Amino acid sequence: MLNRVEDEDLTVFIVSDSIGETAETVVNAVISQFGTDQIEIKKFTNITSIAKLSEVVSRAKDRKVIIAYTIVLPELCEHLKKAAKAAEIPIVDVIGPAMLKFSELLGQKPKLEPGLNRQLDQEYFERISCIDYAIRCDDGKELKKLEEADVVIIGVSRTSKTPLSMYLAHQGYKAANIPLMPEVDVPQELYELSAKKLVGLTIDPTVLQEIRQERLNSMQFKKQADYATMDRILKELDFAEEIMKKLGCMIINVTNKSIEETAHKILSERSDL
Amino acid sequence: MLNRVEDEDLTVFIVSDSIGETAETVVNAVISQFGTDQIEIKKFTNITSIAKLSEVVSRAKDRKVIIAYTIVLPELCEHLKKAAKAAEIPIVDVIGPAMLKFSELLGQKPKLEPGLNRQLDQEYFERISCIDYAIRCDDGKELKKLEEADVVIIGVSRTSKTPLSMYLAHQGYKAANIPLMPEVDVPQELYELSAKKLVGLTIDPTVLQEIRQERLNSMQFKKQADYATMDRILKELDFAEEIMKKLGCMIINVTNKSIEETAHKILSERSDL
Repeated sequence: MLNRVEDEDLTVFIVSDSIGETAETVVNAVISQFGTDQIEIKKFTNITSIAKLSEVVSRAKDRKVIIAYTIVLPELCEHLKKAAKAAEIPIVDVIGPAMLKFSELLGQKPKLEPGLNRQLDQEYFERISCIDYAIRCDDGKELKKLEEADVVIIGVSRTSKTPLSMYLAHQGYKAANIPLMPEVDVPQELYELSAKKLVGLTIDPTVLQEIRQERLNSMQFKKQADYATMDRILKELDFAEEIMKKLGCMIINVTNKSIEETAHKILSERSDL
Repeated sequence: MLNRVEDEDLTVFIVSDSIGETAETVVNAVISQFGTDQIEIKKFTNITSIAKLSEVVSRAKDRKVIIAYTIVLPELCEHLKKAAKAAEIPIVDVIGPAMLKFSELLGQKPKLEPGLNRQLDQEYFERISCIDYAIRCDDGKELKKLEEADVVIIGVSRTSKTPLSMYLAHQGYKAANIPLMPEVDVPQELYELSAKKLVGLTIDPTVLQEIRQERLNSMQFKKQADYATMDRILKELDFAEEIMKKLGCMIINVTNKSIEETAHKILSERSDL
């Protein structure tokens, strides 16, 4: 029987035989639909023995806890189900139902080894080399390497070029980024690239002003007196837009878009990647 | 009824009303337990209408397809379940069962808005500022900013300091990294930091040799003639180990560890973070 949470906050125990990232992703997606202020998350990782599992279950007893788990070993799963039922702790099996369905469809038993999705393979090393690339080619640093890029991001200061490059690198794409500023010549290398590889980022000027103001406040010294003035911002955005049109590249307005959404937009328009 | 896949490869359709990252994470965890060479993944994102959903289902017909979905709108979920059943397409609801259980426990209905976990909030902007920090403090670049760091990673070349810093930044931690080399003085700033913040990376010398050889091959020019020789590698690793011991920091052997695992190890030992 499930008890409604009324007097007390709910704690989610994430229990995993590996590092718990899959369960955490699902739990975050779910609790975002409720409002997170009343929900606390505790992670229990590398839970690969009955003893460790029993310890977690005993910590969950007599509290408002739900257990979300990813455990591949069947004997551990069975133990958790029984122990949780006995203690009246609600549980959510994050990968079990999908695992069962895939197993039936493939006519194969799963390997039942914890942490297999963290194994080092070619794809993994490529991801690391993409991160190296993104760092080397951040902020216009290595123009000679631009032609190696899968994506070259351009835009004015504080349009999230760097975090977007890093996110794309994590996804296994080589991303470079180049700042646009009226006082600095646009590198000739940009005109030599296929326009398809270029992505221009733009943003609502009032939002950019807030972001830049925040940036100035967080810095010890004042970078430039006019960095966050509306005049300066409009001048920069106009300049950038003109360059982007000249280059003929895709333009994305990142106002109120998360990095993940912007990256997704780029990748879904680039069928060659 | 589920058909076993024998003659043909299985395709997983990931169907999401947002960008599909949650479903992709779960599907990757599941297929890692089977062997990915026979499974193809196709993503269908921003599926927020019955029309778009019907189009996806019709593309799945008469093929070996399983649909893994994250859809929060109940009418779309219902439509998908019915259409898939009629077409005999197996489906996996990635967040529905968890959503239902949380809803019961909280005594609340979910907000039913797609993409809520991608909303921009304070945490999000902190993550971006951590990525900025990690880039500025990559490879020993800004020693003056070291005291702001949550974690300072040290180690010889090619022990994955940079990707680890970026991963930690993505998780919302300020990570700096500093290379160790016998010919270069260890920055005084390291000795002024709390040893608790320092993480030394070490690695099996033969694995490091392979990684460095790979690195040399991928570079246009030879960086250093002895970069990948065993003598040089042993000398560097000995030197680094000595420094790490002097600093009294945590030492992690990253041989055959993924970045996620190393990061997890750091975070689980740092209860203050």
